[in-house]
Amino acid sequence: MQKPSLPKGTRDFLPDVMQKRKYIINTIETVYQKFGFLPIETPALENLSTLTGKYGDEGDKLLFKVLNSGDYLQKAPEEVMYAKDANALLKFISDKGLRYDLTVPLARFVVQNRNDLQMPFRRYQIQPVWRADKPQKGRYREFWQCDADSIGSDSLVNEVDLLAIYENVFEQLGLQVTVYINNRKILEGFAELIGAHALFKPLTIIIDKFDKIGIEGVTRELMALGLTAQQTNHLKDFLNQFELNAKHLSDLKQMLISSTIGQKGVEELEEILALCEAAGLQKMPVFNGTLARGLDYYTGCIFEVVSNDYAMGSISGGGRYDNLTGVFGMDGLSGVGISFGIDRIYDVMDGLNAFPAQTNNGTKVLCTHFDQKGLIEGVKTAAQLRKAGISTEVYPDYKKIQKQFDYANKRGIPYVIVWGVDEINTQQASLKNMAEGTQQKLTLTEIINLLK
Amino acid sequence: MQKPSLPKGTRDFLPDVMQKRKYIINTIETVYQKFGFLPIETPALENLSTLTGKYGDEGDKLLFKVLNSGDYLQKAPEEVMYAKDANALLKFISDKGLRYDLTVPLARFVVQNRNDLQMPFRRYQIQPVWRADKPQKGRYREFWQCDADSIGSDSLVNEVDLLAIYENVFEQLGLQVTVYINNRKILEGFAELIGAHALFKPLTIIIDKFDKIGIEGVTRELMALGLTAQQTNHLKDFLNQFELNAKHLSDLKQMLISSTIGQKGVEELEEILALCEAAGLQKMPVFNGTLARGLDYYTGCIFEVVSNDYAMGSISGGGRYDNLTGVFGMDGLSGVGISFGIDRIYDVMDGLNAFPAQTNNGTKVLCTHFDQKGLIEGVKTAAQLRKAGISTEVYPDYKKIQKQFDYANKRGIPYVIVWGVDEINTQQASLKNMAEGTQQKLTLTEIINLLK
Repeated sequence: MQKPSLPKGTRDFLPDVMQKRKYIINTIETVYQKFGFLPIETPALENLSTLTGKYGDEGDKLLFKVLNSGDYLQKAPEEVMYAKDANALLKFISDKGLRYDLTVPLARFVVQNRNDLQMPFRRYQIQPVWRADKPQKGRYREFWQCDADSIGSDSLVNEVDLLAIYENVFEQLGLQVTVYINNRKILEGFAELIGAHALFKPLTIIIDKFDKIGIEGVTRELMALGLTAQQTNHLKDFLNQFELNAKHLSDLKQMLISSTIGQKGVEELEEILALCEAAGLQKMPVFNGTLARGLDYYTGCIFEVVSNDYAMGSISGGGRYDNLTGVFGMDGLSGVGISFGIDRIYDVMDGLNAFPAQTNNGTKVLCTHFDQKGLIEGVKTAAQLRKAGISTEVYPDYKKIQKQFDYANKRGIPYVIVWGVDEINTQQASLKNMAEGTQQKLTLTEIINLLK
Repeated sequence: MQKPSLPKGTRDFLPDVMQKRKYIINTIETVYQKFGFLPIETPALENLSTLTGKYGDEGDKLLFKVLNSGDYLQKAPEEVMYAKDANALLKFISDKGLRYDLTVPLARFVVQNRNDLQMPFRRYQIQPVWRADKPQKGRYREFWQCDADSIGSDSLVNEVDLLAIYENVFEQLGLQVTVYINNRKILEGFAELIGAHALFKPLTIIIDKFDKIGIEGVTRELMALGLTAQQTNHLKDFLNQFELNAKHLSDLKQMLISSTIGQKGVEELEEILALCEAAGLQKMPVFNGTLARGLDYYTGCIFEVVSNDYAMGSISGGGRYDNLTGVFGMDGLSGVGISFGIDRIYDVMDGLNAFPAQTNNGTKVLCTHFDQKGLIEGVKTAAQLRKAGISTEVYPDYKKIQKQFDYANKRGIPYVIVWGVDEINTQQASLKNMAEGTQQKLTLTEIINLLK
């Protein structure tokens, strides 16, 4: 007899958790739809040729690889078996891996299905991804991403739609958040400005660590990268947060006067600011010079969202990339996207007790009984209530009435109907409101009217 | 530059297909909820110790196995490497596999979470499963199951709830179906009756092939199993379909007079018949003596659903099992469940053109423009329409108006708003109804009232 367990980093979702997760996912999905994004799904299994080399060496290691079916060793050369070389053997025994994010599959999808897609193509996708990361608090080996991307349009209207989506989603979820914004072009401008353009990429990676290592850490790493004290100080002037408003943007533009790309970055922010106002956003995103996003492929605006009331890193992020599909042979397609981390949003909402009492779409009425006649009345009643759209169960077994009420209590079912001898004779059921403890005798029609 | 492709037997779902799939899934899910079933999810990755040995030798072969992360060959003994023995090597390099169905994970789930579950536990679960089967028409390596099970109750009210779910779901989907019913106890009774009780299991497997090999094929295989001509003929008398009604059930009971288990099977059908009538089912399930269901674990009533109008095997099936969780060390828990095959139901509905025109939850309004001013008006309009719950897009780029209308056409967007110079001056936008080809000038408030 085996004691069952789960692979580490994976989870079962029980009904209570599921209903809260569905509440988050439905909220985001409804907003995505309101903004004209269309749903797609891609398979969990992708060819390793699609996945490998897209996430850096570290990412390649974290891919879950799936053994070829049948005799998976068939093609393995004997010398590789003798050498016991895991890397060399891999390509002979595994063609497929598990989805690692939703972005690379999107790129593959767009290239493969380009003839069936209208550009600009706005898609959303809500699916699990898998990473063989070391599991720890808030980090799982199977977790959910919830992405929206606009592809094939350079217009900043797309960025503003995504910012408006943030406002809509977090308002509806009842979370106070700050949306940070920056532009890779501004970062590039600063690299140019301090005479370190060649170091732009390693520089962004260092700046990206600001949250973790602070200004001292960043200074240390910049010096180690070979920047002079003057260059470092110059850059530090910029690594401050300011509001995304006209005054600060014109100051920023002044600072970057000598960099064409930097100017372009500020102008994009200015246009975004104007469009955010047109779109009636209640709260402007906050400019954050230290926001860099680790990923290589971003080339324009970048976003990150943090909760104001609960410490939990970023709960969403995204940005613009210039060449999503180039690696699959289709150049010149830019896009911009965001991704909500469902698991982290769940943890924030759970930590803040921010879920509404009514995420529970469970049973509203339980029909109870003393004997077969009462059970049959319950079956009839349930059919009528369900027809009226009221979620109903019949307690299926002949158990003591107290046991049936216990079940209703533990399940949080708000109403219990009792069909006893009297009730059957008069065709008026007893309806008990479990929260208030009140009880009344009503006809089926009256019950339906009351509960609808 | 690589040409992207998908692993065989897997699929991308484009927005049009997704929306139809969501329509099916939402319909089933809403019905499940109305009957008090609660959602759960389990991980895609399960330990191989959970999965192996549960689906027969053939099933074990069809499990997708996932390579251990890191140096997966670390624990592999050199002699096994030298021998190039795939079977022997497996346990050293792979601990995990992909979910093969939703039933074994449910059993594991119930045992692992028993202290947090109320019995009877009614759960539904809608997730993909993976099988390394040979892909062919209608058979995929990644496909969706959509299960509901009642666990921990022997009452036939559970069976009748599932039959009522069938009626609700297929009525709402607009599909004409026949629900077949049988009882393993009746099959066992017949095995007893013809003096072949010891052969009950192989006998059910032969009977299960009736659809494929017909009565002659079944006869041949029964004789090959060692049944006499008399035994075979006796059994054939029973392998006819009749309605599930009182008259036929009493005939059936008469036939099985000498078998206790067979009698019990008929009595269960009689009770189900009475409960179906109490529940007001419009169409009784049809008794089918040849319905056997291949799986070992069924012990009571079994179901299967076929489309009346489209040839496509069974689109749902299920039944009662006595000992779901025994293999994981928790005895005595019976249950009954059904599973909808989403992919097959999709194919049937697609083949019959049975999808309603309005599965498309896509964009309702596209805002178009001639210049920046018009674009800004579009951004403002979109914000207002979305606030009113109307799904809206702004065409993001400065393209010729005809190109913007083409986009609306190809995307099937029913309304287009134009913001030209006149419209901006009068603050009355042109609203075009794309299907009717009509156009009128309206204020934003009028547009919202019209479209809501």
